[in-house]
Amino acid sequence: MIYLDNAATTFPKPESVYKAHDYALRNYGANPGRGGHSYSREAAKAIFIVREKLAEFLGANSSSQIIFSSSATEAMSTILFGSLRKGDHVVTTQLEHNAVWRPLNYLKENKGVEVSYCNHIDASYIDLNDLKNKLKQNTKLVIINHVSNVFGVEQDIEAINKVVKENSNAKLVVDGAQSAGTHKVNVNSLDIDAFIFAGHKSLYGPVGTGGFYLKKDWILEPLKIGGTGSNSENMGVPKSGPERYESGTANTPGIWALGAGIDFINEKGIENIFQHKIQLSHLLIEGLRDLEAKTYYNKNSTVTSFNIENLDSTEVAFILDDLHNIIVRAGLHCSPIAHKNFNTAKQGTIRVSPGYFNTKEEIEILLEAVKELKRG
Amino acid sequence: MIYLDNAATTFPKPESVYKAHDYALRNYGANPGRGGHSYSREAAKAIFIVREKLAEFLGANSSSQIIFSSSATEAMSTILFGSLRKGDHVVTTQLEHNAVWRPLNYLKENKGVEVSYCNHIDASYIDLNDLKNKLKQNTKLVIINHVSNVFGVEQDIEAINKVVKENSNAKLVVDGAQSAGTHKVNVNSLDIDAFIFAGHKSLYGPVGTGGFYLKKDWILEPLKIGGTGSNSENMGVPKSGPERYESGTANTPGIWALGAGIDFINEKGIENIFQHKIQLSHLLIEGLRDLEAKTYYNKNSTVTSFNIENLDSTEVAFILDDLHNIIVRAGLHCSPIAHKNFNTAKQGTIRVSPGYFNTKEEIEILLEAVKELKRG
Repeated sequence: MIYLDNAATTFPKPESVYKAHDYALRNYGANPGRGGHSYSREAAKAIFIVREKLAEFLGANSSSQIIFSSSATEAMSTILFGSLRKGDHVVTTQLEHNAVWRPLNYLKENKGVEVSYCNHIDASYIDLNDLKNKLKQNTKLVIINHVSNVFGVEQDIEAINKVVKENSNAKLVVDGAQSAGTHKVNVNSLDIDAFIFAGHKSLYGPVGTGGFYLKKDWILEPLKIGGTGSNSENMGVPKSGPERYESGTANTPGIWALGAGIDFINEKGIENIFQHKIQLSHLLIEGLRDLEAKTYYNKNSTVTSFNIENLDSTEVAFILDDLHNIIVRAGLHCSPIAHKNFNTAKQGTIRVSPGYFNTKEEIEILLEAVKELKRG
Repeated sequence: MIYLDNAATTFPKPESVYKAHDYALRNYGANPGRGGHSYSREAAKAIFIVREKLAEFLGANSSSQIIFSSSATEAMSTILFGSLRKGDHVVTTQLEHNAVWRPLNYLKENKGVEVSYCNHIDASYIDLNDLKNKLKQNTKLVIINHVSNVFGVEQDIEAINKVVKENSNAKLVVDGAQSAGTHKVNVNSLDIDAFIFAGHKSLYGPVGTGGFYLKKDWILEPLKIGGTGSNSENMGVPKSGPERYESGTANTPGIWALGAGIDFINEKGIENIFQHKIQLSHLLIEGLRDLEAKTYYNKNSTVTSFNIENLDSTEVAFILDDLHNIIVRAGLHCSPIAHKNFNTAKQGTIRVSPGYFNTKEEIEILLEAVKELKRG
């Protein structure tokens, strides 16, 4: 099998991630931070170690700014539902994932939140003039997709944040689900207010993990409330820190394995991983152009979308899977509006997202299969 | 090490659970239900199989009534925040976990939800007369802890639900975090409206898993919103079914391993597991009474709390851990109000919660250690 759906979730994981996942379930079995016995403290320590790793990896000042969740979607919902109230205004873009679109749509329809959608230049980079014009007195959040999961375009966070901070009091929320682990980020120097990551994508952790960086002093209403293991006698929710948002028993094996994923990236070098993906993407895009496929690609993109003539993308993916054992993704990729921009809403796109473990040979096999498919 | 903190999380897990956990991460690596390729369908099928297992295990009519979450706490928050609005009234009890107390307290203080707390007879069984008197026109939910995580008392759901349904329009929400996997439950014949389970406690699954049964036709507002893999073109939230509540990438390895936990229980027999725990608890309680310890125990309890003279419970647990390598839990166990009832709010209690893998010999070693400790 040739797996080229790493933007959905990376596969395979590094062997060290499998081992860490198994080790933690067998050895950090206790409930972290509950009861104070040594075994529980060990589990809590394991989580702390990974929190520190992530803080360093993302350039956060302190591990207390790293909050774990069960997915990037939960992380995004925590930020949106935890901060937006009736009368608030949000600026976002048309390249967002359904993890942003759907909750914003819900907040618009049910809670009186106003949403504006920024234009893109050539359906790729955010139009900074349009962004500036859309900022208002009551703009509370600007939410941008760092790297599009459909078309791979990487936004210029620094330039965007400059416009946001100079022209409004809004906070900048960056959806890093696709970028974290592939594109180097420093939340501190970029002055980002919140940065969302998916554990199981380019961070090479297991599914069931994700989270976000939250700038110090930004306090959200919690999405879920319950026991935190600490201050059991207190009826209130912890006032700040990760505990405020992490009620319930933590997923220690998932988090510990995510730590192994970060180690893997640090060991290989994020720049090398990025370059490897870029090389494979360039090889792919050149081959596809030779085959006269329609390609949707941006420079420095680690994700490539394409179509062959007017063939339904789902059908193409099915044939690649069924006849060639090649796994790519077809359809709208949870980002319907991004497709409207590119006029691919009906056909969808075939998305190829290579990972660290893919090879040039695999891309060549894919191109051969597309060639065959085109011949019919 | 002697681990007697199974009410926090069961440990060890059955070997089959470790294996399933590892197998799923290595083999069901794709994003379930996303993209439609064979590999993604396999992950989706794995989740469906476990959903079916849980439906059968809990006596639900259909697996579409089983919703997965990352913890019992998240499941409870989904129900509470997804149904309670300003002006609603809730009846609950004083034996609830912080996963109920804290969100209700938050809803009371911030959202205008009214909460009444039922009395208990002898600080154990719910006073059904008091329950009846507390039900009002606007009572929307009655929330009860099936089995107390502190004192082990098992409530009579049938009798409670009879009072609720005959005297109100309220729905009955049962917190089964402690009971699921130890006490047999049939949500259908008991006519329960929602039943919450923790995957990692007596169901022997990994941490990071949990969920709830939701009666057909009861639609909640979702706690988190995002991509569901289906109907990507639709801006709305799915109108019903698990997808409405399960936005974001599912924790396939956790869920698959939870399925192995259910298989383990079915293979051993839930009644045998229950009897094994009861026997160990009886042995413990008799031994503790011989040692003149204060015990807090109810018949059919698989959880025993005790104190030795006026010694701080945390200190006792520390000594048991440090000198004897025995893991028990001390403190308030995330249930501060339950302790007020028993006048143990200051001292806390030492809680012993045996699991399937504990033996009589281990209980005897614990009793010997307590004896030594008492001698000072």
